Amino acid sequence: MTEPEPALRIIGYVRSALTALAAAPRQGDEGAPSARIELDPALRAGLDGVAAGDELVLLTWLHRSRRDVLTLHPRNDPSLPLTGVFATRSPDRPNPIGLHRVRVVAAEEGALLVEPLEAIDGTPVLDIKPVWRAADH
Amino acid sequence: MTEPEPALRIIGYVRSALTALAAAPRQGDEGAPSARIELDPALRAGLDGVAAGDELVLLTWLHRSRRDVLTLHPRNDPSLPLTGVFATRSPDRPNPIGLHRVRVVAAEEGALLVEPLEAIDGTPVLDIKPVWRAADH
Repeated sequence: MTEPEPALRIIGYVRSALTALAAAPRQGDEGAPSARIELDPALRAGLDGVAAGDELVLLTWLHRSRRDVLTLHPRNDPSLPLTGVFATRSPDRPNPIGLHRVRVVAAEEGALLVEPLEAIDGTPVLDIKPVWRAADH
Repeated sequence: MTEPEPALRIIGYVRSALTALAAAPRQGDEGAPSARIELDPALRAGLDGVAAGDELVLLTWLHRSRRDVLTLHPRNDPSLPLTGVFATRSPDRPNPIGLHRVRVVAAEEGALLVEPLEAIDGTPVLDIKPVWRAADH
């Protein structure tokens, strides 16, 4: 691999009542709450056009994850066979980027209230994209 | 923003007949070809369980993008109003992470043939995830 490693810019943080990984659902639609996305104030203009009701894909950096895992038991269930990490949605992976499909409940100046979101309080946010098509990921 | 910037690890590269950005479709389903994903040999075990026919989300680092753009005309069409970058799928954004919904045509030792993929030859790959649900992004 010959290119330099790209550096991420943290664009904001998740603010959530979820503070413990152990209490967080594995996926947003497994009982996750609403959460606030607080954007870096320097990037506020980037939210122009995002409105309540929008369906978004939120990209986060799952900062509590392990990055050295290549095979694992899906959903941490030892009865499931060892599987390559790229065949799973485990947060433990070389680049622990979380993908979260969320709906905008309210758009504020420099922040979004979204739901559902299983990421814990303090999770760095990397990107916000509109859902492109229903079958887009 | 108080945490250190996370460093990405490039897990592989796109090998494609698309070599010029100008010739690349804006989205995979706008006429993009098949492409090969060559994984870092140290990470091969991570592909265990990925098979032909699987639907994946590929995350790439769109290394030719501008990272200082906050508002733009969607699809580079000046007749469309200036819009915040987080309300668009533009590759020019603070963290130019591409999301690509692809299908596995063939799984090889340490590589995947996938389609369709609009990323150009040499694009770094950051992650490979199975599609979680039809409406997942």
